[in-house]
Amino acid sequence: MISEMRERPVILREILGESLRELRTAESLTLREVSGRAQVSLGYLSEIERGQKEASSELLNAICGALGVPLSNVLRLVSDRIDAREDAHVTRLPVLNARDQAA
Amino acid sequence: MISEMRERPVILREILGESLRELRTAESLTLREVSGRAQVSLGYLSEIERGQKEASSELLNAICGALGVPLSNVLRLVSDRIDAREDAHVTRLPVLNARDQAA
Repeated sequence: MISEMRERPVILREILGESLRELRTAESLTLREVSGRAQVSLGYLSEIERGQKEASSELLNAICGALGVPLSNVLRLVSDRIDAREDAHVTRLPVLNARDQAA
Repeated sequence: MISEMRERPVILREILGESLRELRTAESLTLREVSGRAQVSLGYLSEIERGQKEASSELLNAICGALGVPLSNVLRLVSDRIDAREDAHVTRLPVLNARDQAA
């Protein structure tokens, strides 16, 4: 009925993928250009951008290098976005609720 | 001769692993406790902490939940650490050097 409101866990590869895609288009780079520079197949890069495949640490370095963006910048962007979604979901984790258990 | 000074690329899974281990020990949690809560084998969790295995996005969520730390906090910690190492390596990427090229 209100499926839009159902909580969906934040998935790192999805936020990472959309961030990588936005950084690429902001640089006016095509999938083909980045896949060539990063030496990854165009199809695999596309799957990473769509959050369908996990990028290994080495591949992530190669993609960041191809985009000309430091890995730390990408992770900060991803962290900020996940933070915003975590707040939106009011996700409180068990250990943080110790005072509730004590009450 | 001066192999200590040779540049080594920053590998996300290594920084992520050491960060997860520090967060776990800061909470005085054992590998066994976290592996039980996150429903991951103790051996696999240990390999992730040692930077030997990539954690999937779902497993990372489970580990963060077991540690009681939001994923965004973990990524911010990792980002800061990678940023510090990137600076140490004086890694300047092409796009950031546009003003040098203009000079």
